[in-house]
Amino acid sequence: MRLLFLNPNTSTSMAETMAAEARRIAAPGTQIDVHSAGFGSSYISTRSEAAVAGHALLSSIAAHYDGHDAIIVGAFIIPAVSQAAKEFAPVPLIATGEAGLATAQLLGPRFSILSIGAPARKMTFELVEALGQLPRLASIRDMGVSGTDLVDRQQAADDTAVALALDAIETDLADVIVLGAGSMEGMADRIRDRIPVPVVSPVASAVIMAEGLVRMGHRKPTAGAFAGPEGIAMTGLDPALSSFFSRRD
Amino acid sequence: MRLLFLNPNTSTSMAETMAAEARRIAAPGTQIDVHSAGFGSSYISTRSEAAVAGHALLSSIAAHYDGHDAIIVGAFIIPAVSQAAKEFAPVPLIATGEAGLATAQLLGPRFSILSIGAPARKMTFELVEALGQLPRLASIRDMGVSGTDLVDRQQAADDTAVALALDAIETDLADVIVLGAGSMEGMADRIRDRIPVPVVSPVASAVIMAEGLVRMGHRKPTAGAFAGPEGIAMTGLDPALSSFFSRRD
Amino acid sequence: MRLLFLNPNTSTSMAETMAAEARRIAAPGTQIDVHSAGFGSSYISTRSEAAVAGHALLSSIAAHYDGHDAIIVGAFIIPAVSQAAKEFAPVPLIATGEAGLATAQLLGPRFSILSIGAPARKMTFELVEALGQLPRLASIRDMGVSGTDLVDRQQAADDTAVALALDAIETDLADVIVLGAGSMEGMADRIRDRIPVPVVSPVASAVIMAEGLVRMGHRKPTAGAFAGPEGIAMTGLDPALSSFFSRRD
Amino acid sequence: MRLLFLNPNTSTSMAETMAAEARRIAAPGTQIDVHSAGFGSSYISTRSEAAVAGHALLSSIAAHYDGHDAIIVGAFIIPAVSQAAKEFAPVPLIATGEAGLATAQLLGPRFSILSIGAPARKMTFELVEALGQLPRLASIRDMGVSGTDLVDRQQAADDTAVALALDAIETDLADVIVLGAGSMEGMADRIRDRIPVPVVSPVASAVIMAEGLVRMGHRKPTAGAFAGPEGIAMTGLDPALSSFFSRRD
Amino acid sequence: MRLLFLNPNTSTSMAETMAAEARRIAAPGTQIDVHSAGFGSSYISTRSEAAVAGHALLSSIAAHYDGHDAIIVGAFIIPAVSQAAKEFAPVPLIATGEAGLATAQLLGPRFSILSIGAPARKMTFELVEALGQLPRLASIRDMGVSGTDLVDRQQAADDTAVALALDAIETDLADVIVLGAGSMEGMADRIRDRIPVPVVSPVASAVIMAEGLVRMGHRKPTAGAFAGPEGIAMTGLDPALSSFFSRRD
Amino acid sequence: MRLLFLNPNTSTSMAETMAAEARRIAAPGTQIDVHSAGFGSSYISTRSEAAVAGHALLSSIAAHYDGHDAIIVGAFIIPAVSQAAKEFAPVPLIATGEAGLATAQLLGPRFSILSIGAPARKMTFELVEALGQLPRLASIRDMGVSGTDLVDRQQAADDTAVALALDAIETDLADVIVLGAGSMEGMADRIRDRIPVPVVSPVASAVIMAEGLVRMGHRKPTAGAFAGPEGIAMTGLDPALSSFFSRRD
Repeated sequence: MRLLFLNPNTSTSMAETMAAEARRIAAPGTQIDVHSAGFGSSYISTRSEAAVAGHALLSSIAAHYDGHDAIIVGAFIIPAVSQAAKEFAPVPLIATGEAGLATAQLLGPRFSILSIGAPARKMTFELVEALGQLPRLASIRDMGVSGTDLVDRQQAADDTAVALALDAIETDLADVIVLGAGSMEGMADRIRDRIPVPVVSPVASAVIMAEGLVRMGHRKPTAGAFAGPEGIAMTGLDPALSSFFSRRD
Repeated sequence: MRLLFLNPNTSTSMAETMAAEARRIAAPGTQIDVHSAGFGSSYISTRSEAAVAGHALLSSIAAHYDGHDAIIVGAFIIPAVSQAAKEFAPVPLIATGEAGLATAQLLGPRFSILSIGAPARKMTFELVEALGQLPRLASIRDMGVSGTDLVDRQQAADDTAVALALDAIETDLADVIVLGAGSMEGMADRIRDRIPVPVVSPVASAVIMAEGLVRMGHRKPTAGAFAGPEGIAMTGLDPALSSFFSRRD
Repeated sequence: MRLLFLNPNTSTSMAETMAAEARRIAAPGTQIDVHSAGFGSSYISTRSEAAVAGHALLSSIAAHYDGHDAIIVGAFIIPAVSQAAKEFAPVPLIATGEAGLATAQLLGPRFSILSIGAPARKMTFELVEALGQLPRLASIRDMGVSGTDLVDRQQAADDTAVALALDAIETDLADVIVLGAGSMEGMADRIRDRIPVPVVSPVASAVIMAEGLVRMGHRKPTAGAFAGPEGIAMTGLDPALSSFFSRRD
Repeated sequence: MRLLFLNPNTSTSMAETMAAEARRIAAPGTQIDVHSAGFGSSYISTRSEAAVAGHALLSSIAAHYDGHDAIIVGAFIIPAVSQAAKEFAPVPLIATGEAGLATAQLLGPRFSILSIGAPARKMTFELVEALGQLPRLASIRDMGVSGTDLVDRQQAADDTAVALALDAIETDLADVIVLGAGSMEGMADRIRDRIPVPVVSPVASAVIMAEGLVRMGHRKPTAGAFAGPEGIAMTGLDPALSSFFSRRD
Repeated sequence: MRLLFLNPNTSTSMAETMAAEARRIAAPGTQIDVHSAGFGSSYISTRSEAAVAGHALLSSIAAHYDGHDAIIVGAFIIPAVSQAAKEFAPVPLIATGEAGLATAQLLGPRFSILSIGAPARKMTFELVEALGQLPRLASIRDMGVSGTDLVDRQQAADDTAVALALDAIETDLADVIVLGAGSMEGMADRIRDRIPVPVVSPVASAVIMAEGLVRMGHRKPTAGAFAGPEGIAMTGLDPALSSFFSRRD
Repeated sequence: MRLLFLNPNTSTSMAETMAAEARRIAAPGTQIDVHSAGFGSSYISTRSEAAVAGHALLSSIAAHYDGHDAIIVGAFIIPAVSQAAKEFAPVPLIATGEAGLATAQLLGPRFSILSIGAPARKMTFELVEALGQLPRLASIRDMGVSGTDLVDRQQAADDTAVALALDAIETDLADVIVLGAGSMEGMADRIRDRIPVPVVSPVASAVIMAEGLVRMGHRKPTAGAFAGPEGIAMTGLDPALSSFFSRRD
């Protein structure tokens, strides 16, 4: 099975952090190809950057989907974007954020999310709201560290995450902890033993679910909300994207 | 006062239909400049086209905002896009869809929307949901006509709208009728006398509210969800948009 | 255009505070006539006083509506009352509370309201709930000052409002600040420059929207929830009100 | 025990219909005194009449509460009014509408309401919404008969109610039937044997609950939302009401 | 009238605490028979124990219902269990938890619940949610005492309850206080005079409402969600329960 | 990996139907052991049977969990039961109903469920509500066939399912079809090609997700809502269950 892992920002290092977790959890025989966005910003923390990323993501799909069984979008914070991508993609597509919350639902009634920075906290809140999961959200806790800290001071970042998780369990009555940033991927396995409730990796969840959709035989719908656009003339787009829009199956 | 009216699709004829209504309702002294999207599709009926339009809209803002007091986005169906545009724009920005629903709220407890085509019906439903107005939605009724019909067979289209509105009032208990497509603009004034409840033009509503925000002195926030992005390095964008993202105020 | 501004309590000084803001924002050519309630209390802080004010408001409408294009009710806290008044009035009617929240919706996802006194805080909460805006309410903050303080110690009151607003933005994640009491009107313009998000005056919002409804041509509905009562025999009411109820159009 | 039964309209015949049901269900030793409104309309079918009735109800309480242990308001359709009356009354107060829905909650997950006339249907819907019971509302069915029919053609009206109830159970999946108009009182006992789910009389429910609140020892709160107004100077009211507002306990 | 009071756990002392309150409030002529569960645990604080109690409760109903007019289940924390019991029982059945919340609804817009222990706090929250009353929940406050303390150190426990209630009124804006544990029954009457808002005993509420349902003539539904199971062959159950399932009326 | 598949009713033929689908989709190396309930009914269509099944399920877990990595409960209709089982089980546990809806969420905004019989339709509705998915439910469609028909007249049943699914897509705007009964398992693969949107097998979904939870390393929580009961003395239970409750880890 071949999965296409698309990073909606331009940061190859964040793509690699997520890809490492994806490959760690993938089943034997699952190949994961990784691509970052062809344009936009290296870290998406505003709605404006997310709007550009929405376009970039479609371009990435058009350019790279060929030969893949399913697509994973490595993004916790862009619900409208992933909905458009689901419609657009010719194979099943899952965003890591929705996959992480779907896993959390199975593991406990209420979950807390660890996030990085105030803008991400707001956008994470809106993702939870958009997915209809607000009644189950115990809290969103800000790690108070930078993406760089997560790499250079990994032990300290892990300790911060453990402390926040324990407090969320005690104070916010969280039953599950979800890692709320792509740059935190890899951490779940390191801290799991120190936390008395499940710790969810959205990337791992997305790989499991993408593999599962393929194994179950789900294919591109030809009716309903996620039936793809066809035969649409677009102007001003790159050739691959333009061609994809105008195709007729 | 100068208002910038942005059409998120590339159709200059739809832009003109909306602009005519905007200019009809505008106060003396209000100048309205109209621009259509620089890339994308001529009619947005899928999430994928909307995702591209989200990018195109930011480009239009960056290219044309200078010298304007407020911006109107002529779109009934793209909530996430207008939220990003509000964050991005350096002056107050209103989408016609949200303006139409805000006016409807003042005029009655429950409203019905006349829309064009099944895809628009679904996306209109999601707009209403995203704005938290679902409890007040009496129905969305499909006109069953094409955009061309609205121009070429105007009298018949008006009759259809009146019949649907009367039925929505009777059957769905609607207290207000909202025109749910840019191509229907201009119709409110023609059919108002034949319908016993208010008929809302989203474009007219947006002009009233945009003028109002300017008169009330509302300016770009520098904190909160709609504070603008600043100092962000973007790659692969057109120069005006790239320059706008990287500016520091 | 002539607007009728009705104060549902008997305090002429509060009526004048609101009227001053209304006239400041009104378009050239808009005349605003102001009347306070003919009976009831001078400040409405309980449901019981509001119930009496509901009757007094209909009496005021019957006595004074003649010759006006629209009506504004200067009240932040009485949703059922303003709904009845909308039904009763022969021209469009807007309450300042709903107008303030409608403006806030356009300016940001979440708003905080500055209120005066614990009873007002509770009734304000219920107004927000009745308008379906609870998911967007960041907080209601009590000014901790009296109505007299707002006049006699204006600078101190302004400073209090600024401090509360800044804290609401920081702590409650508010994107918009709404002035939640008629006696605070006039303050928005004085403090706007000290607050990094929009500050909304409900009275100014109501004037803008009332003018707008008239300019857009909205008239009294003859069907639906706000079609007026007609041909109803009432006993024990003042003659003007009784006569209004029994008229047939 | 003495209960005060207040009819918010001026119709003594409707008061008697409801009083008959109240006395039928009352415990031995419970005395029920009945008063209709001193002003207003004989049948409340609009928000405007309800607004006047809100004032009239407070006047009735002030005039007649003395010597009673609890108050029942015979009204299915006026939530804001009964909330004000709860705050105002010096003893526990229950509206028949809320009592009927509280009984329905105990008897099944979903209920249908039989109502009389389109205006009542709309106001009944809003009562259910205001009480937070919309998720449990299976349907509101219009009897299509007049109040006079209920008296003069009782057998036919009963048959209509039975037919509607059976259809609501079958089609709308109703588990409970609620009589939605004061003029229908007395019917529950006549039709109960012909309907396979419980049939709720709101008046009977209110008597049971009012007696129960007294037996349980619940008294007027002196804090919270329903603490009464005290020491308030009101102008232009009848002497009893004015005196009640200005008292200090 | 004969009421059957079923305790879903095996503790006869808790059954007696609840029964004492039930008999104190019961009308003259109401006889109350009390039975505890035939198997399970002595105090239900987990979902697993509640699942066993759900079976035990049906066994108790089958064994003891004969000759009773209605059934009360003394349980604040098991919504799905009481729904099954309502379906199963051949006479009206009320759980004390739902009865307490129904009483609270009549007495004020928002209520706080005093509970015992963190597990009970969580399960109480879910009961409130399952009954659709979350919008009215001001808070759940943990007494921080054991069931034994309630008996052996009654004065101290009463003082704790009063202090928590006063704080809930002040801080959480509670309008009503509900006793959230069977072991707290009897307290309402002792502390009522020290608290300025109503204090609700769920057991007393359930007796009032069970008596009321009988007086109103409500009988077992033969259609809808609570129509009983009939003619069902069950294996492995005690004979009384098995026989009850397989009967045909 | 060894998975324990528990059927909460006593029907070994339904257990085999579900087990066949489970084994069809399971990964190589996944062993699936199947057990039906030790007591209760052969088909659960009432809340009363479900209450008994809740107990039976815990007995099955206590008797059979040893040596398994995760547990699947083959049940679409019993939310409170599966929550208790999650708490009780010493390894991750998933119910097929929640797994099916979690898969549906990934595949489209709105889903329809095909169910068998009116009781199942009501209980399915409540499952969707309990999982917070009501806003996404397009419809529940009754197959109108018996469980026997599904085996003996498979082709006709398949045709019925296809017709209902196509109508749900057209009329109810469904984007996904979910098989809502264990006896329908196996059908998804046969009808997938005839339906233009995804068809979800809850059993297949549960296998995918159970395998996934194990691969991701999720273990039994020792805090939060699903921490297991320990050291609890239960009376009257079978020895294995009693012993499981009283163990201390």
